[in-house]
Amino acid sequence: MNLTLLHSEFRSELDLRLEKVRYYMDIAGTDALLVGYPSNLYYLAGGVFRGYIYVPIDREPLFFLIPPSECDEPGCHPVRKPEQIPGVMKDLGYPVPTSLGLEFGDLIYSEVERLKALFPDARFVDGTNILRHARSTKTPHELKLMREDGLRQATVYSQIKHCYKEDMTDLEFQIEIERVLRRTGCLGFLRAAGSRMEINMGSVLAGPNADVPSPYDFSMGGAGTDPSLPVGASGEIMNYGTAVMVDMNGGFNGYQTDMTRVWTVGDVSDLAHRAHDCSIAILRDLEKFSKPGTLIGDIYERAAQLSEDAGLREYFMGHRHKVSFIGHGIGIEINELPVIMGRNKEPLLKNMTVAIEPKFVIPEVGAVGVENTYVVTDAGLDNLTVWSEELHQL
Amino acid sequence: MNLTLLHSEFRSELDLRLEKVRYYMDIAGTDALLVGYPSNLYYLAGGVFRGYIYVPIDREPLFFLIPPSECDEPGCHPVRKPEQIPGVMKDLGYPVPTSLGLEFGDLIYSEVERLKALFPDARFVDGTNILRHARSTKTPHELKLMREDGLRQATVYSQIKHCYKEDMTDLEFQIEIERVLRRTGCLGFLRAAGSRMEINMGSVLAGPNADVPSPYDFSMGGAGTDPSLPVGASGEIMNYGTAVMVDMNGGFNGYQTDMTRVWTVGDVSDLAHRAHDCSIAILRDLEKFSKPGTLIGDIYERAAQLSEDAGLREYFMGHRHKVSFIGHGIGIEINELPVIMGRNKEPLLKNMTVAIEPKFVIPEVGAVGVENTYVVTDAGLDNLTVWSEELHQL
Repeated sequence: MNLTLLHSEFRSELDLRLEKVRYYMDIAGTDALLVGYPSNLYYLAGGVFRGYIYVPIDREPLFFLIPPSECDEPGCHPVRKPEQIPGVMKDLGYPVPTSLGLEFGDLIYSEVERLKALFPDARFVDGTNILRHARSTKTPHELKLMREDGLRQATVYSQIKHCYKEDMTDLEFQIEIERVLRRTGCLGFLRAAGSRMEINMGSVLAGPNADVPSPYDFSMGGAGTDPSLPVGASGEIMNYGTAVMVDMNGGFNGYQTDMTRVWTVGDVSDLAHRAHDCSIAILRDLEKFSKPGTLIGDIYERAAQLSEDAGLREYFMGHRHKVSFIGHGIGIEINELPVIMGRNKEPLLKNMTVAIEPKFVIPEVGAVGVENTYVVTDAGLDNLTVWSEELHQL
Repeated sequence: MNLTLLHSEFRSELDLRLEKVRYYMDIAGTDALLVGYPSNLYYLAGGVFRGYIYVPIDREPLFFLIPPSECDEPGCHPVRKPEQIPGVMKDLGYPVPTSLGLEFGDLIYSEVERLKALFPDARFVDGTNILRHARSTKTPHELKLMREDGLRQATVYSQIKHCYKEDMTDLEFQIEIERVLRRTGCLGFLRAAGSRMEINMGSVLAGPNADVPSPYDFSMGGAGTDPSLPVGASGEIMNYGTAVMVDMNGGFNGYQTDMTRVWTVGDVSDLAHRAHDCSIAILRDLEKFSKPGTLIGDIYERAAQLSEDAGLREYFMGHRHKVSFIGHGIGIEINELPVIMGRNKEPLLKNMTVAIEPKFVIPEVGAVGVENTYVVTDAGLDNLTVWSEELHQL
């Protein structure tokens, strides 16, 4: 397996990540983590493999690889099943953990129970939260990958107008965008945390379909084309006078950016234009307002207030159904920490990466608004998804 | 939400499914199930929604919908969170369960713990296994949907030769196939159980890449194009004299079929031809051999023996790395019960649907072999994925 972070030239990158993980392990009062969830394996090894990573707070991590995964970098140990982990640890002189973090919020119940049985005397704490907090601020190397994503995603968005033909359905339009994304290197599979995030490569929402609620935890809904996957494009023809919101997969390299732009079929109502301009104005405002230390709840409240001041609150973040957030952390997964919602009392941290998406749903017209992915810097938010934000006519 | 099985015309279909679920509940000794995993919600409601289904062994099921999901069919009850479920049950005169099945093998640990706390005095059993067994045999309505999938998938495969251009990479070829699939109605998102099943719309394996192991639980591997998703097409040009195995997404309607065919760039070695013919011969043999009551392990052993008789055992189900199964149940998810492997001592049941994929990896040439999806009938296996099985030259 290609576990890139174990190559000698990336060992300092791995150490940076381990330092953050251990910081949150210390806060949680745990002396070790046992990691098995693909997103977290990727975070700590630089590649997805079959197996587990054991991270003690004060020793080198151990990488346990189950066949067919194999790797001969230092720290790697082959095992056939997790039950062999304690024996290898003992041989290496690693003590049994007194407190162990397991991924309560990521692994299925039966896998956590199996891992608990490896260390019957340990106290168990939630490792998901430790890893999500550690992952929420990015290293320079991670930011480099996300800048690359943003550039590629913007390149694809600049070609979207060529994907359109008159009398197309929203789904046909989406399929052409998917092809351009894939040909530009998009990996396709959209990595998201939780079972309430099923989708295929993102969402194209045209006209009134934007107002159809969906069971998933995305900011906008859509009926989808089948009750087995009720989200996104509905297969209807995109009508004159409606807005088409494109919020498609920006994952090219293990990380991803999140970016939304809106096209219109012909022109749309003044109200829709006003709401779209308001979204851009909110972003400009938040880009300056949001700095390390800014309370995340205040960012949400400020955006909501700006929509209120513009007389657009009833359309803000949905019309028939509203969601209670205007953005989210992003990186390996599309739904990382922090969640930018009113009740989040935590501060923004330097080098967090957040997608901010003040959107409006205008009855009959559809969804308007812009989403960018930003990195938090001392000077405010730095946009990774730079491309024309105005309404583009198809 | 469109919960199709709650419409009056599908109520008898729902009853058929409940009957099977209750059969396995009885065997497991549980008097109720609480279901929350999307695949199982879809199975018992005919649509994915946000919420839970409570299935007592001797009363009508209750559908608990969390906003924005809503439904006014009989049996549907709005709740804001799962903690409200016991109160609604009490109001309806439903007793507290003494034994409750929860989806230990599907839901994340923290969600199962949350659901356990709703009924602190209950004994908990694994509901995943109950539902997987119930789902493994299909109703006539489910078979109708899967026949439709098979027809559509075959239609797409008949167009694959037009997706090829000389000096294409495997990934470019796959992207064109993805587009044809999507335009034919494929939903794209590939529903699979477990965290070891990440992939984008299936796999195109060309040449030696077929012999690269992958950490995921698919029958064949492939390096992928990035360590974050090490599976499938590698982005290399498809060379003259190699085989290209196409095993792409057959999900069009909430169900799916699984189908593999092989194309060659120019011609391939005699050994590759022999192995491919052997795969077809194995399928012809198993189609007659496999009937209700046939032991599943015997199906695997028979296929392995046929590959041995042909002198091809070293290439069977992988060369550098072998997998220990030759097929799997399929329906809502691509990896359902039964797993067709040597140590499976259970009998095949009538109306099970299984994908059987005797494949060979030939060094330097790549993967050859055929996969079809079958329904188990008294007369043997009935093929849902009928289309030319020979090696097709590109």
